[in-house]
Parts: sequence; C-alpha cells; structure tokens
Amino acid sequence: MSVAEYIPGSLRSCPPDLASWVDGPTKSAIIDFVGHVSTEIAPEERVAVFDNDGTLWCERPAYVQLDFLVRRLAEQVGTDPTLAAKQPYIAAAAGDLGWFGDAVTKHYNGDDSALTVLAGAILSAYQGLTVEEHAERVRAFFAEAQHPSLDRPYLACGYAPMVELLRFLEDNGFTNYIASGGGRDFMRPVTTQMYGIPPERVIGSSVGLDFKDGDLLTTANPEFLDDGPVKPVRIWDRVGRRPILAAGNSNGDIEMLQYTQGLRLLVRHDDAEREFAYSAGAEKALQQADEHGWTVASMRDDWVRIFD
Amino acid sequence: MSVAEYIPGSLRSCPPDLASWVDGPTKSAIIDFVGHVSTEIAPEERVAVFDNDGTLWCERPAYVQLDFLVRRLAEQVGTDPTLAAKQPYIAAAAGDLGWFGDAVTKHYNGDDSALTVLAGAILSAYQGLTVEEHAERVRAFFAEAQHPSLDRPYLACGYAPMVELLRFLEDNGFTNYIASGGGRDFMRPVTTQMYGIPPERVIGSSVGLDFKDGDLLTTANPEFLDDGPVKPVRIWDRVGRRPILAAGNSNGDIEMLQYTQGLRLLVRHDDAEREFAYSAGAEKALQQADEHGWTVASMRDDWVRIFD
Repeated sequence: MSVAEYIPGSLRSCPPDLASWVDGPTKSAIIDFVGHVSTEIAPEERVAVFDNDGTLWCERPAYVQLDFLVRRLAEQVGTDPTLAAKQPYIAAAAGDLGWFGDAVTKHYNGDDSALTVLAGAILSAYQGLTVEEHAERVRAFFAEAQHPSLDRPYLACGYAPMVELLRFLEDNGFTNYIASGGGRDFMRPVTTQMYGIPPERVIGSSVGLDFKDGDLLTTANPEFLDDGPVKPVRIWDRVGRRPILAAGNSNGDIEMLQYTQGLRLLVRHDDAEREFAYSAGAEKALQQADEHGWTVASMRDDWVRIFD
Repeated sequence: MSVAEYIPGSLRSCPPDLASWVDGPTKSAIIDFVGHVSTEIAPEERVAVFDNDGTLWCERPAYVQLDFLVRRLAEQVGTDPTLAAKQPYIAAAAGDLGWFGDAVTKHYNGDDSALTVLAGAILSAYQGLTVEEHAERVRAFFAEAQHPSLDRPYLACGYAPMVELLRFLEDNGFTNYIASGGGRDFMRPVTTQMYGIPPERVIGSSVGLDFKDGDLLTTANPEFLDDGPVKPVRIWDRVGRRPILAAGNSNGDIEMLQYTQGLRLLVRHDDAEREFAYSAGAEKALQQADEHGWTVASMRDDWVRIFD
C-alpha cells in the first residue's frame, strides 16, 4: 500500500467490536474488565493509558521517529557543511541507519560515546523552530514516508486490534491517553487521524520551549524523557487521576503498568510472519507480567489481523 | 455565609447567560467574539485559558494557598519541635501572616533573604506524602476554611461573572483550562466543584514527584513555577494548541495573553466596596492592555455582582 492508496482515518474508524481479537482468555479478560468497570467505576475515573511504539504502532526495524530524525540531520548537513565531517551527520547523510542501531547496542555494552553524540544531535535538531513549524514538518513527513519493509505508509502501521480496543473503551465511557517515550510533538500531528486521540491527550518526551515575541520556540535543552518511572509522573501531571487500564510492550512501561490499578496489558511481539518477533528490551516486563498475572496479548495467537 | 450554609456546586451551576455582566462594551466584546468563533473556528480549536488567583477566585488579603500552607507549617512545628525556633515556622505557629507578606515586599525591594527561607519551607512542606494524601488534605482544608474578611468559605470565593463566562464558553463549544501560578495539586480537588473544570484541565505550579512502590510521592524538588513566560510553555505541553481566549489579572499573565490569538481579557480589581481595590503586581499588564487594546473587565463597572 502506498501513501496514495491509504485512506485517512480508515483505521481510526474501525468498529468497537474487538473483531480482530481471537476469542480466548486475553479477549475475555478485556471484556470482563470493561464490563465490571461500566457498573462499578464512575466515567470520569475511566482513564486508560497507552504506550505508542510497539504498543499502538510498529517500532521495528527502527522507531518511526528515528526515520524522521535522520532525514532532518541529513538536511542540516545540506545547510551547514561543517557538520558533514562528524557523526551522527555522516551516517545520516549516507542513510546509514546501522550506525544509529550500533549507538544503542554500544550503550547496552557500557560504551556511551556514540549515544552521547547522538543525544546532542537529537536535542539540537529542531532548535529555533516554532512549535507550529515543527508540526508542519511532522505532517510533511507522514504525508509521504513509507515503512521500509511492510509495504505500507507509517500512517497505516497502527495495530488494528489496539485501535479497536481504543474504540471499545471509548464506547464504554473511557478516556484514552497516549503515554509514550516518543516525542510529544512528533506524535500529536497524527494521533487524531490514526487513533482518534487528540493532542491534549498525548503525553511524551519533550525538549524545552522558550516563549519569545508571542511564539514558542524549540530549544536544545532536554525537558522530559518520558520513560520508566517518569511515565506515571507525567501521567499524573496531565490527568490528575490514576489510570485503571494501561497497555505497553517494553521494560520502559513497567512503572506505568505498576501504577495502574486495574487491567495491565502487555503486547508480546511474537509474530515474525506478520510483524516482527523480538523480546529485546521487554524481558523484565514479560517477567513482571508472568509474576503478577498481567494480561499478555500475543500478536501471533490473540490477533486475527495486525494491520488495517 | 458559613461552610455549613454553602451549597456545593451552586456557583458552577449558574446559567450561561452572562446575567452578572453589566450591558456595555466589555460584555459586548465577549459576546461578539464568541459569536464570531461559533461560525469561524472549529470546536477542537476553541481553547480558553484562565488564570485562577485574582481571575477566577479572590486572592486578597492573601493567596488561599498561603492559608493552607501556613496551617501545614504550624502542624510541622507540632511534630518536629526543632523547627519552632526558625522562620517561617515561628510566624506560622504564631499565625503571623504579616511575616509572609513582608517576605514578598522585601523581595520587591531587592532583599530575597526571607523569600529564600520561605521557598525552602514551601518545597518541603508535603515531602513524602502520596499525591492522594495531599489531595485529601486539600479537601479537608476547603471543607472548613473561611475567607478572613468576606464572610464566606473559600469555596464560595469564586467570581460569579467569571463562572458564568466559563459556562457561556462551554455552551459555545469551548474547552476551558486553568493556567495558574498556584499549585496544580492544590487546585485540582476543588475546581470541578467550583468551576466545572476537571483535574486534567488544571495547569499549575508543581514540585517533583517520585514513583516508589506503586505510588507517587511528593518531593522537595521544584518542578515548575507556572508564571510569566512559563505559562504558555505549560499550556502547550498540556493542550498542544494555541488558546483563542485567555483571562488574567496580573503581570504574571502577560505572556499567556500575548501567546493567545483571539480575546485577551484582563480583570481589574477596582472595587474596594465589594471586593478589594489594588493594582500592585498588575501595573505592566494594565499598561499592555491599554497599548494593545486588550479587553479590561472592571469589577466595579462591569460586574453586577461579584460572588454567588
């Protein structure tokens, strides 16, 4: 499917019937919980939070936002040739995504040199743009970017069963939020179209902003990395209520799931044929799910289809 | 009026008819703007932001939150007698509110010694409490606290014309937010009852929170002082849209009003008889209003009544 073939909002408008979920214990756990909530919990307390990368949309072979970033770094080399001789701009200009993956691998092996260089480039990538200019760049990216292997635009890389779940929850009086390690202002321009979740319900990582001459300008200062124990803090900041349903897929979601009092759902990536099979970065979360009886959604066994 | 005589939600349930506004240019400016918006601006873009202290509720003779804080400092002296010999605990235990006012006056005269001492006490006042325990203390405070001179509980110190405005805006498809220098978690337990604004739409100052053993604990680390140029940044963080209506009353609201593209409303405290008359801390805002044609609401001339 090309971007031209993609129908905007098609995924978001799927019916709230969980038809893409296989009948079985996982689907039953969701339906039973929501049934209980509809009679026992006041509507304003029906708060659900969803991680994004790997929970609502595909995060492999690389984060969608990394594709957006690498294009920007390459663009920066074009306007500032002094960048061309150093990393990560060399890799970005050459389209060498492997360098970025290696930076993360080195980090896990105790060598933070590449990741530090990368972090500096990430922070300064949009410095000086207004928030509106940044949003326009995000929209332009999604208007043409295709997933590298799935033969579909990124806009069509949301998981159909999860979007059905969002609709099912809404239909039962829930309010859905995204609580993601991804960039708050990277997600906002497309979450309404993809998930029916408006900007005010998108929580994510951010750099600092400066107010100047009536506008908000992007700075190179870190503000939040919305991951791990930071997730419940940012959820409280935004919502002021404790969620009763949370869904995630990785170790960075553990604290958000622990904070939630109600249904804890972990998406397991075990479908090499239709998506990707991996547990790297999810080992501790899967162990917690096992120990504490969290609900695990196997992409292979619990989902009739992956995408719309 | 005592707390016992106060009818919960009575102010919030006033009709959206602006009946407490005097017919004249200020009321007309509001009605004309909202009429324009209803045909020209999509509902999801109808975002209105309101300062709280001095804009939605009375801030004189002292901030409501200062009363809450002083009681807590006095309580801390009771459990930790080593505090009894130092400020601001001496003043708090003696009920000497003058000391707190002096700290601010000294600050304006270039002497920050008292304010620094006060800031440390403020930051550590609720350290170690969960956010739920803090909320419970706020509710207990409002369940019995009376304004020192207005013969009414703090819960009845909201401005009736402003709450009518909130209802009028909602009636016309707006979504209202509070954007206050006051504490986010101090306001949240009462904003639904007083203004019909739920916790997720309350933006304010905050200390840092720590996630521990499934709970969020209050720390003594500053996070945001939601005032001046910080207000538009926190509004963007929460909403992801630029407001089309903003209301404030002090210099700390200038940047929020500048950021807003639409109606900018400044409440002028010029009614010594029914409320308080003062312009201290609002001089620059009133000057900006004059220079840029912001709409000024005179409490004396534009409001039929002040309170419910």
